[in-house]
Amino acid sequence: MIRAGIIGATGYVGAELARLLCQHPEVELASVASIEEVGKPLREVFPHLRPADVRVQEELDDVDLVLAALPHGVSAKALLSYIQRGLPVIDLSADFRLHRLDEYARWYKVEHPAPDLLGKAVYGLPELHRQEIAGSRLIAVAGCYPTSAILALAPAVKAGLIEPDIIVDSKSGVSGAGRTLGLNSHYAEANEGVRAYSLDGHRHLPEIVQELSLLCEAPAPAVTFLPHVVPMTRGILSTCYARLREGALPAGERAREELRTLYRDSYRDEPFTAVVEAPPSTKHTLGNNFCLIHPALDERAGRLIVVSCLDNLVKGAAGQAIQCMNIMLGFPETAGLQQIALYP
Amino acid sequence: MIRAGIIGATGYVGAELARLLCQHPEVELASVASIEEVGKPLREVFPHLRPADVRVQEELDDVDLVLAALPHGVSAKALLSYIQRGLPVIDLSADFRLHRLDEYARWYKVEHPAPDLLGKAVYGLPELHRQEIAGSRLIAVAGCYPTSAILALAPAVKAGLIEPDIIVDSKSGVSGAGRTLGLNSHYAEANEGVRAYSLDGHRHLPEIVQELSLLCEAPAPAVTFLPHVVPMTRGILSTCYARLREGALPAGERAREELRTLYRDSYRDEPFTAVVEAPPSTKHTLGNNFCLIHPALDERAGRLIVVSCLDNLVKGAAGQAIQCMNIMLGFPETAGLQQIALYP
Amino acid sequence: MIRAGIIGATGYVGAELARLLCQHPEVELASVASIEEVGKPLREVFPHLRPADVRVQEELDDVDLVLAALPHGVSAKALLSYIQRGLPVIDLSADFRLHRLDEYARWYKVEHPAPDLLGKAVYGLPELHRQEIAGSRLIAVAGCYPTSAILALAPAVKAGLIEPDIIVDSKSGVSGAGRTLGLNSHYAEANEGVRAYSLDGHRHLPEIVQELSLLCEAPAPAVTFLPHVVPMTRGILSTCYARLREGALPAGERAREELRTLYRDSYRDEPFTAVVEAPPSTKHTLGNNFCLIHPALDERAGRLIVVSCLDNLVKGAAGQAIQCMNIMLGFPETAGLQQIALYP
Amino acid sequence: MIRAGIIGATGYVGAELARLLCQHPEVELASVASIEEVGKPLREVFPHLRPADVRVQEELDDVDLVLAALPHGVSAKALLSYIQRGLPVIDLSADFRLHRLDEYARWYKVEHPAPDLLGKAVYGLPELHRQEIAGSRLIAVAGCYPTSAILALAPAVKAGLIEPDIIVDSKSGVSGAGRTLGLNSHYAEANEGVRAYSLDGHRHLPEIVQELSLLCEAPAPAVTFLPHVVPMTRGILSTCYARLREGALPAGERAREELRTLYRDSYRDEPFTAVVEAPPSTKHTLGNNFCLIHPALDERAGRLIVVSCLDNLVKGAAGQAIQCMNIMLGFPETAGLQQIALYP
Repeated sequence: MIRAGIIGATGYVGAELARLLCQHPEVELASVASIEEVGKPLREVFPHLRPADVRVQEELDDVDLVLAALPHGVSAKALLSYIQRGLPVIDLSADFRLHRLDEYARWYKVEHPAPDLLGKAVYGLPELHRQEIAGSRLIAVAGCYPTSAILALAPAVKAGLIEPDIIVDSKSGVSGAGRTLGLNSHYAEANEGVRAYSLDGHRHLPEIVQELSLLCEAPAPAVTFLPHVVPMTRGILSTCYARLREGALPAGERAREELRTLYRDSYRDEPFTAVVEAPPSTKHTLGNNFCLIHPALDERAGRLIVVSCLDNLVKGAAGQAIQCMNIMLGFPETAGLQQIALYP
Repeated sequence: MIRAGIIGATGYVGAELARLLCQHPEVELASVASIEEVGKPLREVFPHLRPADVRVQEELDDVDLVLAALPHGVSAKALLSYIQRGLPVIDLSADFRLHRLDEYARWYKVEHPAPDLLGKAVYGLPELHRQEIAGSRLIAVAGCYPTSAILALAPAVKAGLIEPDIIVDSKSGVSGAGRTLGLNSHYAEANEGVRAYSLDGHRHLPEIVQELSLLCEAPAPAVTFLPHVVPMTRGILSTCYARLREGALPAGERAREELRTLYRDSYRDEPFTAVVEAPPSTKHTLGNNFCLIHPALDERAGRLIVVSCLDNLVKGAAGQAIQCMNIMLGFPETAGLQQIALYP
Repeated sequence: MIRAGIIGATGYVGAELARLLCQHPEVELASVASIEEVGKPLREVFPHLRPADVRVQEELDDVDLVLAALPHGVSAKALLSYIQRGLPVIDLSADFRLHRLDEYARWYKVEHPAPDLLGKAVYGLPELHRQEIAGSRLIAVAGCYPTSAILALAPAVKAGLIEPDIIVDSKSGVSGAGRTLGLNSHYAEANEGVRAYSLDGHRHLPEIVQELSLLCEAPAPAVTFLPHVVPMTRGILSTCYARLREGALPAGERAREELRTLYRDSYRDEPFTAVVEAPPSTKHTLGNNFCLIHPALDERAGRLIVVSCLDNLVKGAAGQAIQCMNIMLGFPETAGLQQIALYP
Repeated sequence: MIRAGIIGATGYVGAELARLLCQHPEVELASVASIEEVGKPLREVFPHLRPADVRVQEELDDVDLVLAALPHGVSAKALLSYIQRGLPVIDLSADFRLHRLDEYARWYKVEHPAPDLLGKAVYGLPELHRQEIAGSRLIAVAGCYPTSAILALAPAVKAGLIEPDIIVDSKSGVSGAGRTLGLNSHYAEANEGVRAYSLDGHRHLPEIVQELSLLCEAPAPAVTFLPHVVPMTRGILSTCYARLREGALPAGERAREELRTLYRDSYRDEPFTAVVEAPPSTKHTLGNNFCLIHPALDERAGRLIVVSCLDNLVKGAAGQAIQCMNIMLGFPETAGLQQIALYP
């Protein structure tokens, strides 16, 4: 068994990594670290992690692989020594996601702690970068919103179906804001309320643009990305809108068929991305690693609409990290990830 | 006291009309009708309507005014005799909202029961049609989604700020689907889930287009309207996107100021529509008659974003009906509508 | 207009007092104080309090009456000077609820800041102490759980119907824990979870025992009170169980009739306490000042079951405070409190 | 692989059986039947059951074992032919749970369709009847509420710790009412509301009494059982109260220790029942097969309080059925049941 360690184990993403590793056939959860709850058994911090037989430490014990669920800035710093020792590292923060240093500085407002490593990191979205992930030692797991947006749009962008002018309207459950206390995540404030946030620009935007740009010719698509919080615990649903290129699809019912075929073909061999016939609900992915995608047409307005959904803590974070880990280590890609969604 | 009657009193909109009328200083709830629960005291059907001292009947008693909360098709038919008797009528269905008979037939798939009355009806959105409402005897109260969308977009459309190519992404609570049982409103199915619906076109779209078209020159704006259900009881939040016209706003920070001024000026004298500084939550309008509007710019993409919210059963239905009634009858527009939102 | 001031205005109870005072015909919200958000307009702290035209201050301006929504210990201290100046004071903390100093010290673990005032305070539960409230200048508004439990049990205790051995199992919405941040009120932790708390004894127990003891001969009833949190914002439902005294009720169906009559007679003239035929839901009191009570019998086990519900922020706090204020100031008891519950 | 069939596969319990069987190492989901959705792929009825490669049929194909998730009355009838053919049968309805025919008739108001089989059925609660389950061909899986109540009370009843006078106050999520439409499960009615139901006696009461009676000498304990619905999808929390027998526990802190030891010893070897130090939340069992139990003392009132929780669709239904199946077929008891709860 490979011995994995989690740093930042006391947040929601860390706990979700632990949940998935406890059920993994090839990897064991060998050590967990955090600056909080040091000394406590992990199962005391999170009573649902009954099978996790580890105690929270300040530093990881010897492990074969490190998964990091820390805030940006902090994460790269904490990972440096592991990377230097040659350990394979899977980072769930944003620190190694952006290729351009200036974009990182502009959006994250901190100096990058390890700029020379940026070139070595691979963007951890298997559907687009499977081969590079297989050959890498440093994975920057894709963000939750970007995963839903990029997977929804990639086939259309790649096929030149749409104008480079895209709107992504995302709806997220409250767990996306993490376990850190705040008024916006206070039950009585969040319950029975929907609101938009980050109207001045959300940090997940440059990831979306970076990855979509790789799929088409310049110029990079202009993307408006607006996240919303809705009163539920887990789940992201993204609704993407873009104008169809003139003549990109045939007229009438054949347009729908061609669109469906394009999407189905794009994801035919994917173990965790599925094109579905009916508009999906976030409930269909609760607790599992799927991203469900439903492309549609607004013929009146000449517009493509793609709805996608996933569990922000699984395919949007911990599950995708495990999927990347499986690819990197040569395990079956679905190892430890075959949970069926919990419904209802 | 004016004696008002409600037909269709056993649905959510009917009950909300009753709640508001029970607290109205000039109008009393004199009679209620429904095809369900006939013979029962209304307060037995809805235990919260404790002060309502009426019994559900098949037909209304003599009243001075009729409010109808019935499904489309059924509503116009049920109202015909009252209209012919000259009673003032406020219809909350879609039957009299569209001016064009062919649009009605196309979207509602029924023959209109009273096509000659279409010309007499006024679209019940006081912010746009206050004067006509004052002089009318037949009000077609605006739909819940259209109210949020039209109020969000009207200032920008009127001022020529945006290209005629608009996206409205709306998020509604489950009560919008009414009290009729269905799997989509079944608690275990709706809870912890977000989903889009009516991707082939929602019936509220033609209302939105009709009203926005009145505010600008031809051609009518192309509108993509996509509704979503989120797990909460009441509330609609609409996020509207449109490309800014070149040169329509000055550059830099002055653009925001000008935008804010335009919106503030547009609604300065409105008793129930307010432009707010921070992105609003549906919680801010829970149970009251306000529509809150927050305009913003995505300068990177050259786009206007307007977020609006309201309570679908109040400003989106019963409250707006009472507001129209007040205007029609010459009462203060805010009579019976001064409830403060319930928070948290 | 009487000028009222609120201290502790930035919590949920303070905000609810403001909501109700803004709609009161005889009293105006003249000043608000808090140690937080000083200098901000109240409507900026709570956007739903749009009509509240006051700014948060460190100290109240000159007012005719003070309402305090502060934590215990802090409250009595903050109120001392107002009491000494002879102002009428309505305290929503627990500081003046218990008559016995030792009980206060035992449960609240602090020395009482004003022990000599204990004798002057009246327990603010109008159904039991209306006359004393009318003649008092210092009201200690009953707690949320105690209001639901005492009103549910009072008729049975007074009539000698039950053995002095009572269980109160209460279920509360999350707003009962206030606006102060904490993991238990964090959305993702509270949502989709029910749990019991304070198994070692909750501070509301001595109030319940004190008030029930006044209604029967010694010994005081033994009460087990166990609160639970359920995933909703507002509302308390208390289920009370006690063994029936032998022969206290006739046999068979007549027992139910007699029970119902006893309860109906007890609350016949109460404006805000109602005995209902069907088991009530907390939804039936959402946002209004009612306490609904449903007595029932488990004949197999020879047990009385009484279910009661109320809105913890209204009849359980701010509404009851306004009701006490109305009585104290000689206004109609229902002034400013006639809102109908919001449903659904 | 054993080939299992599910009848009643289109309800929530049926779907949950399918979810668990799809992840079982020794048993495959070979066939599903229902009177609804006949002809549809199961994964179309329930999109989350993506790996289930079966179509809904009117009758089961040839299978080695039958699991039934049908309403009472219907279930026994539907199972008769399978039982007669000698197939092992696991019934999740109440039809074979009660040993006494008159109790069945009294509570379920139907004539029993197969009274002679009552004697052959074993009550499917492994913690109490493991050996009998191993030797049986007909299991009547324990009800959801009874499982939580019996496991909470069994150690105390068996040890003679409490008076035979017990109160069980249970709080259930809405999925407990099933997938059949009804106003009580309508989202807008159930959300933000808590209510008690079945105050005249709930059908799960006789099961609780039957099983507790087996653990103590006559007379059977008098049990008051009152279920409540709370606004969440899954989970049951039961709070059980009973007076301690004089002298049954030592005085002071040693009482708690002895109580904890009694409970820990009772469930020491159980794979799915755990005694926990802190009061559990239903979130701790979301989607898994655990029952968590927390015993406590109210020393003031001389009362035992036991809080237990479980997922009503797993340990309260489908998971317990699979657990019984594993025992019956000689598989490891935890096979296919090792999912970790989903948190948050």
